[in-house]
Amino acid sequence: MELKKENDSELEKSRHSLAHILAKAIVNLYPEAKLTIGPAIEDGFYYDIDLDHSISADEYDKIEKKMKEIINKGENFTRKVVSKEEALKLFADNPFKTEIINELDDNQEISLYWTGDDFVDLCRGPHVESARQLQNMAYKIHSVNGAYWRGNEKNKMLQRVYCYAFKSKKELSEHISMLEEARKRDHNKLGRELELFTTVDYIGQGLPILLPRGAKVIQILQRFVEDEEAKRGWLLTKTPFMAKSDLYKISGHWDHYKEGMFVLGDENKDKEVFALRPMTCPFQYQAYLNKKRSYKDLPLRYDETSTLFRNEASGEMHGLIRVRQFTISEGHLMCTPKQLENEFKACLELANFMLKTLGLYEDATYRFSQWDENNREKYIGTKEQWDEAQQAMKTILDDLKVEYTVGVGEAAFYGPKLDIQIKNVFGKEDTLITIQIDQMLAEKFGMEYVDKDGTTKNPYIIHRTSIGCYERTLAYLIEKYAGAFPLWLAPEQVKVLSLTERNNDYAHSIKNKLENIGFRVEEDLRNEKIGYKIREAMSMKIPYLIIVGDEEEKTNTISIRGRGYENKSGLNLSDFIDRLQNEINTRKI
Amino acid sequence: MELKKENDSELEKSRHSLAHILAKAIVNLYPEAKLTIGPAIEDGFYYDIDLDHSISADEYDKIEKKMKEIINKGENFTRKVVSKEEALKLFADNPFKTEIINELDDNQEISLYWTGDDFVDLCRGPHVESARQLQNMAYKIHSVNGAYWRGNEKNKMLQRVYCYAFKSKKELSEHISMLEEARKRDHNKLGRELELFTTVDYIGQGLPILLPRGAKVIQILQRFVEDEEAKRGWLLTKTPFMAKSDLYKISGHWDHYKEGMFVLGDENKDKEVFALRPMTCPFQYQAYLNKKRSYKDLPLRYDETSTLFRNEASGEMHGLIRVRQFTISEGHLMCTPKQLENEFKACLELANFMLKTLGLYEDATYRFSQWDENNREKYIGTKEQWDEAQQAMKTILDDLKVEYTVGVGEAAFYGPKLDIQIKNVFGKEDTLITIQIDQMLAEKFGMEYVDKDGTTKNPYIIHRTSIGCYERTLAYLIEKYAGAFPLWLAPEQVKVLSLTERNNDYAHSIKNKLENIGFRVEEDLRNEKIGYKIREAMSMKIPYLIIVGDEEEKTNTISIRGRGYENKSGLNLSDFIDRLQNEINTRKI
Repeated sequence: MELKKENDSELEKSRHSLAHILAKAIVNLYPEAKLTIGPAIEDGFYYDIDLDHSISADEYDKIEKKMKEIINKGENFTRKVVSKEEALKLFADNPFKTEIINELDDNQEISLYWTGDDFVDLCRGPHVESARQLQNMAYKIHSVNGAYWRGNEKNKMLQRVYCYAFKSKKELSEHISMLEEARKRDHNKLGRELELFTTVDYIGQGLPILLPRGAKVIQILQRFVEDEEAKRGWLLTKTPFMAKSDLYKISGHWDHYKEGMFVLGDENKDKEVFALRPMTCPFQYQAYLNKKRSYKDLPLRYDETSTLFRNEASGEMHGLIRVRQFTISEGHLMCTPKQLENEFKACLELANFMLKTLGLYEDATYRFSQWDENNREKYIGTKEQWDEAQQAMKTILDDLKVEYTVGVGEAAFYGPKLDIQIKNVFGKEDTLITIQIDQMLAEKFGMEYVDKDGTTKNPYIIHRTSIGCYERTLAYLIEKYAGAFPLWLAPEQVKVLSLTERNNDYAHSIKNKLENIGFRVEEDLRNEKIGYKIREAMSMKIPYLIIVGDEEEKTNTISIRGRGYENKSGLNLSDFIDRLQNEINTRKI
Repeated sequence: MELKKENDSELEKSRHSLAHILAKAIVNLYPEAKLTIGPAIEDGFYYDIDLDHSISADEYDKIEKKMKEIINKGENFTRKVVSKEEALKLFADNPFKTEIINELDDNQEISLYWTGDDFVDLCRGPHVESARQLQNMAYKIHSVNGAYWRGNEKNKMLQRVYCYAFKSKKELSEHISMLEEARKRDHNKLGRELELFTTVDYIGQGLPILLPRGAKVIQILQRFVEDEEAKRGWLLTKTPFMAKSDLYKISGHWDHYKEGMFVLGDENKDKEVFALRPMTCPFQYQAYLNKKRSYKDLPLRYDETSTLFRNEASGEMHGLIRVRQFTISEGHLMCTPKQLENEFKACLELANFMLKTLGLYEDATYRFSQWDENNREKYIGTKEQWDEAQQAMKTILDDLKVEYTVGVGEAAFYGPKLDIQIKNVFGKEDTLITIQIDQMLAEKFGMEYVDKDGTTKNPYIIHRTSIGCYERTLAYLIEKYAGAFPLWLAPEQVKVLSLTERNNDYAHSIKNKLENIGFRVEEDLRNEKIGYKIREAMSMKIPYLIIVGDEEEKTNTISIRGRGYENKSGLNLSDFIDRLQNEINTRKI
C-alpha cells in the first residue's frame, strides 16, 4: 500500500497559504503565541509555534472554525519587500523571526506577506492572491507534537501543529482512511501490542528493547543470514563497537561523520577520546591487515552481525526504523579490479535472495546514490576517483540491467552506493540494504596485496549489507504481514490448548513431542473457556493452534485452527508435523 | 597447571627489603631517578621509578650486579620515626613522596628506613635487620613496564621494574620454567598466532578484534548457550547497550559504579547524558515491567547474549581476559521467595554443566562474595537486607553442599554473589561465572507481582551468567587446550590436502561432501610439498587432516592425520563421517 504524493505546485501554494491562515487563527485565539515557520508538506502543512498553553485535541475544532471564518472574509495575500531594519523592527518581540532575519545576507530580499491588514508573516512565498481561492480546500488539524526550534534539541521546544490539506473533501477523506489502514499495520503500534518490542523513557528514544518475541525473530533471522553468508564464502568477524579517535581520523569519519557519532570523552581534556562506531568498515579492515595478502587470497569476504550507533536527533526517532543503536549484517569484500563486477553481482544476488525470502522483494526499488560535485567538502577523494568509481558502478548496474533512480548527494563520503529502498506503511522511504564501491579507504589504511607481477596494489572494497538492519527489517516484516509472520519466523509456531483440564496431560504430551523435534511451542492449560483461550492466542497471531478435548484424546488425534487452514479435526499429529516441516523448509510466506 | 603462591611473611619481608636494595642500586646507577613505591608481590617485587632514560633489558644485568654489591656490604636496615615536617624536607625534591606524605593524617607515624647511611626510603616496613640476611635470596629482573603513578592514567607514566625473588636458586629456576610453559599456552600469544584475535593500537587497548577463526568459535559457543538456555526455560531478550543517566540513577550504578562506566556527554552541559552499560540488569528488567505480573507468571527467566562496556584503566588490560567491551551470557530471573532455592540451584547446575562441557570444571573454585560492613558507602540497602540476602545464599550453598571461600567486600553493590573463579596459566585468578541474589533492585524499579492472597510484592531477582564472558571463556579454552579446541568448537574441523595436483578434484569432492553435511572444512590444493601442507595445517591445530593421493583416489578411500588418531590409511569416508559426528555430538573434549 502506498500513499499518494502530490507534486503539484498550485497545491503546495494553497497549503502554504493555509499555513498562514492557521497562524492567523492561532494568533487570534492565543494572542501570546509566537510564530516561527510553517511549510507545506506532502499531505498538508504544519506550523511551529511557541506558546505556553498546550493545544489539546479538543481545541482543533475551534481553530479550524476560526480558519474557516478568516478564509470566508476573502482577504488578499499582499507581498511587501522591506529592509532588514524594518523587518527587525516589525518582529522585535519575536526572537525566532529575529534570528532568521539576522542570518540573512544584507543584500538578500526580505519579503512579508500580509493576510488582510491585521496579520503579517515573514515569508518567501509564493501564496495565493486571495483567501477566496482557499474556499474549496479541505483541511483538518490532526496532531500537535513537540518540535525543537530548528530541529536542535538544545533549542526551545515548540508546538508543531500538523494539518492535512487537500483539494477536495473526497481526497481528504481518502487520505484519512488510507492512514487508518496503515495505522493498523504500523509496526510502532502493532509491534508493541504483539510484545515484540517496547521503549522506555528513562532509557531513551531510539533505543528499543526487544522483548522475548521480538528477540526470537531477530535470532532466527540472524542465524539464517550468518549461515547463508557462510555458504557463500563470507568469513565472520566480531570487532569492537568503539575505537579511539585515531581510527576515525584515518578513515575520514572524524572529519566527515563526527556529528552523527557518539563521542566518549573530550578532545580538549582527555588523553584518549573514544567514539562508538557508526559503521563497521575501519574495524573489519583490521582482519585484512592482520596478514600480508597476495592476489591469490582475493576476493576476501568478511561479514559481521554488527552493532552500530548513530547519534540521531531526538525528533527523528521512529519505532524500529530510525534508532540510535542497531544491528546490521555488514560485510566488506576486498578484490582486484577484475573481480569487482562478479563480486558486486553476487552481493546484489544475495540481497535480492534475502528480500525474496522475506517477501519484501516486490516493495523494493533501487537508487544509484552519487556524490554531489557541488558539495565537495562532504567527500574524500578527487573528482577523478569519483568519476572512476561511479563509472565502474554504472557499468555494472547497466550490465546487470538494474533499473534505478539516481540520488545526487546520497553517496557515502568515500564512494557511490546502490541503495535498496523500501517504504513503510505511511509511504516514508528508507534504505534497507546498500552495496557500495570504495576505491579510497584501502589506500588510507594501507591495505595492499601483491599482484601476479610482484607489484603492490590496493584492492577495491565493496561495502555491503545483505539484509540491512535487523530492527528495521523486523519493522517492515511486521507491517508487511500485519504481525502474522511466516511460520519459519514466527516467535511461537504452535500453541496447544486443552479444552478442559481433563485434557491437560494429553495437551502437554503433544507440546513435548513438538518441542523435542525443534518446533517453538506454547501451551495453554488454564481452566478458561476455549473461546477465550483461542481469542488470546489469535490476538498474538500464532500460526497454528492445536485444540484437544476428550474426542481428540480418545482417538489420539488433534484439531487445528490455523491462519492458512480451514479448521480441521481428527488430524494425525505426524501428518501435521510433516506439513509444518515442509512449510518451514520452503520458508513459505 | 597452577603456580605456587607463597604466603610467607618472612619471604615477603625479604622481598620488600630487596625492593629497597633495587631502589638503592637504581639511584646509584641513575642518580636522577625519583623513587615512588616498591611493594612485594606474589613472585617477587617491583619498584615504580620516575626516570627519563628508559631502562632496557640489557641493563638488567648491571642493575642486578649493583644489587649484589650492595647486599654484600651487609648494611643494616635502620628504622627512624620522623615528623611530617622533617619527612617533607627530606623528600622535598621528590613530588611523589611529597604527595604521599601530605596525604598522611597529622597523628600518623611516619617511618623511614635507611639502608646504610647513604640511602633512605619512606616506608612502613617491616624489613630485615641487615642486608646480610638477603644473601641467599635468588632474584632476577624480568621486565620493565610502563605504569601510571597511582594507577591513574591522568598521572605521569613511570617505569615499573619487576623482579622475581625466591628463597633459593632452585625455587627461582622452577618458577621461571613454569612460566615458560605457561607462556607457550598464554592465550594472548597463542591466540594471535592461531589467528583467533588481534589488537590494534589505533583502535585501543582492551578492544580485541576477533578474526574469523575466533569469531567462529564464539558463534558456536553462543548458539550452544542460547539453545541450552532456551531448553531450560529462559526467554531471550535483546536490549540496548546504552541509556540515559536517568536509568542508572534508579539502579544505583550512577552513584556506585560510575567510575567504571563510559559516559557520553557532559552532565553540566548536555540535556541528555548517556552511558554505555556495564551490566544488563536494569535493561532486562524492562521486559518484566512490560506487563502486570502475577505469581502464576513466576519464575520468569530472561537471558541475553549481552554486550557490556567497562572503563578499565589502560594498565589493567590483558588479551581477551580483561577488556573494555565484552559479550556475556547474562540472565535475570524473577521469582518468589519460595522458588529462590530451586531456581538458584538450577542456575548453578547450568553453570556447572557449561563448565563440564567446556572441560573447565576441574579448574573452577567457588567464592561466596559478601559485602564489607565497614565500607557501607559501596553498597545500597540496609544491614538487615544484606543479612537476609546473605543468609538466604548461605542456606542455599550449605543445602547444596557447595564448598566455597568467603570474599568479604567482593559482593555486587546490590547483593551477595556466588563467583565461580578460574585461574589463567600464570596463576592469576578471575571470575568466570557469577550467580547473585538481589532483593533490592526490584523495589527500586517498581517490579511487582500480585501474590495468591491479592497483595502486591517485589520478586527476588537472581542475576546470573551461565558461561560468563565469551571472550574470557575463549581465552581459558585457548590456554586449556593450548589452542587445540575440541572438535565441536574447532573453527575448522577438517582440512583436505591433495598429495599432487592430479588429486585436486577428488580432494575437492571430499571437501564438498563434508561441507554439505555441515562440517567446517578447508582444502589445500596448492602445488606444494605434502609435508609443508601438513605442517601448516597442524600449526593451526586443525583436528583432522584428510590426505588424498593417487592410491586413495583409486580405492575411493581417504588417509587421515588426526590429533587423537594414529595416522590411518584406506579409510572409508562414510565411516570417518560417523566418527566425526559422534565426536561432535558427545562434545568430546
